[in-house]
Amino acid sequence: MLRARGKGRRPVMLAIAGDSAAGKTTLTRGLVRCLGADRMTAVCVDDYHRYDREERAGKPFTALHPDCNHIDIMEQHLQLLSMGEPILKPVYDHATGRLVRPELVQPKDFVIVEGLLPLHTRLARACFDITVYLDPPEPLRHSWKVGRDCAKRGYTPEQVRAELDRREPESAAYIRPQRRWADIVVRFAPVAGRGDPPGTPLSAELLLRPTIDHPELGEVIEGAALGDATAMHLRLHRDDDGRPVDALHVHGYVSPEESSVVKKAIWERLGPRAGEGGLTPEALGRYGEADTSDPLAITQLLLLYHLLDADHRQAA
Amino acid sequence: MLRARGKGRRPVMLAIAGDSAAGKTTLTRGLVRCLGADRMTAVCVDDYHRYDREERAGKPFTALHPDCNHIDIMEQHLQLLSMGEPILKPVYDHATGRLVRPELVQPKDFVIVEGLLPLHTRLARACFDITVYLDPPEPLRHSWKVGRDCAKRGYTPEQVRAELDRREPESAAYIRPQRRWADIVVRFAPVAGRGDPPGTPLSAELLLRPTIDHPELGEVIEGAALGDATAMHLRLHRDDDGRPVDALHVHGYVSPEESSVVKKAIWERLGPRAGEGGLTPEALGRYGEADTSDPLAITQLLLLYHLLDADHRQAA
Repeated sequence: MLRARGKGRRPVMLAIAGDSAAGKTTLTRGLVRCLGADRMTAVCVDDYHRYDREERAGKPFTALHPDCNHIDIMEQHLQLLSMGEPILKPVYDHATGRLVRPELVQPKDFVIVEGLLPLHTRLARACFDITVYLDPPEPLRHSWKVGRDCAKRGYTPEQVRAELDRREPESAAYIRPQRRWADIVVRFAPVAGRGDPPGTPLSAELLLRPTIDHPELGEVIEGAALGDATAMHLRLHRDDDGRPVDALHVHGYVSPEESSVVKKAIWERLGPRAGEGGLTPEALGRYGEADTSDPLAITQLLLLYHLLDADHRQAA
Repeated sequence: MLRARGKGRRPVMLAIAGDSAAGKTTLTRGLVRCLGADRMTAVCVDDYHRYDREERAGKPFTALHPDCNHIDIMEQHLQLLSMGEPILKPVYDHATGRLVRPELVQPKDFVIVEGLLPLHTRLARACFDITVYLDPPEPLRHSWKVGRDCAKRGYTPEQVRAELDRREPESAAYIRPQRRWADIVVRFAPVAGRGDPPGTPLSAELLLRPTIDHPELGEVIEGAALGDATAMHLRLHRDDDGRPVDALHVHGYVSPEESSVVKKAIWERLGPRAGEGGLTPEALGRYGEADTSDPLAITQLLLLYHLLDADHRQAA
């Protein structure tokens, strides 16, 4: 087994759960580019299908259903990765709908696991140092899914919408309940009723649960309120389930100055690791073909903080 | 995880190692039929190829070479099976030479692992309760391989012989050294210079190493020497490497009476488990289309003894 960090050190494991087209890959990509592919392994756990597309056609459930997936094997593979062991991961070919040759995955220092059900079972959750749930408003996610599946997977909008309808009961039953297990819930959404100019990035609302130690951001944000005091704020909030959380709002119209103060503050809290580690912060905040978003960049930076912090604490 | 025996009990693991066409599948098949497929899982570990046939064409080694295989994943899967965990096993399609959709393997009470390299590494060996190496004389194995690969895999005899030549250095370097790790070395061969009538089954020579506890057979065999005292015998023997072993010879021309005495003796030593377990002893000794061999049956019965004995000791 080859590990950049040497034997005995376990990888830092980050889960990014969320429904189809919730933005998991966009969030993941910036982190991989920033930390470097030589230190980070990204794994999608949506390939553990028990049936291929043809076999699934006769079944009473969609690919979202846990019974449609080898959940026990996913758990086993997450455990192995978390111990620094390689896995032979199954591969599902979206183009043909068939299960094909599996691929060897060697965990590097950091492993991001993204997918539909990485937080579904207790054993799977136990494998992670940091857990994230992507929670965009459903109409926005639907439009993202229509856009992507038509552009990249050759479906018509009607087909995608029919599929979304078909999946809705299982999304409600299996995907969305994972939100409660996340250390950080991320919601990208437009701010209602503001009439921002076209091209304004979506705002980010980050629920920071006290299940992990977040960096101290209160004072930073207060200090950063240069012009418009509502562009970014941290607020104590009671979640839908009644549990207290910190809610960090980063508005899409945040000014570059304000945003850079917060980015710099998180960056400094990354400590000496930020400088020495060969990080590429320019990679953060990118989406689509060539667009950038400060709320996305700040979200990724916060995750980067947690990755390096968990790594640091393991070493200590 | 579903196990016939319930949680907490580990499967009994039997390895059958040997070169290509050494008779691994023939030996395995009778055991599976006798114990029943509902209690026994047979796994072939020759599917852990790192490269498919096309990729291998450019490599300086054959499929026998450990570097040509995911040995670390094979070890991992053997460990998981030995703990009663399921695996998603890679599958190599001999017809196309490609790696295809992996298959779920749920270990039952008994797991037979057969293949080219199951005893290659210490970690793999540690997973087994009983280890067997199939060691036919090379000319005999070559003729078996020509027969099989021409009949079932569409090659010409010249192609098979060329492949055997190409593989010989790796057979010598990686396959045959596994013989030393076997609790039981099985050699089926004709008895030289006897002029047995055509159709006489091959004789079996079983080296029984004191690495596991074999059933007491000395007296049984002495008592069974009904007519020809040389048809079957147990002899203290010094192996090529100098280590002492018991060598059990079962000649192909063994009389049915003599053979049945030994079979009965082993059967009785299986204890009450033999009767209650729904065993199908008629399945033992079969090979080819419809042939039977008493030396093969006795070999399988001895392995059956060890399987049930290991199971019994685990339960105790």
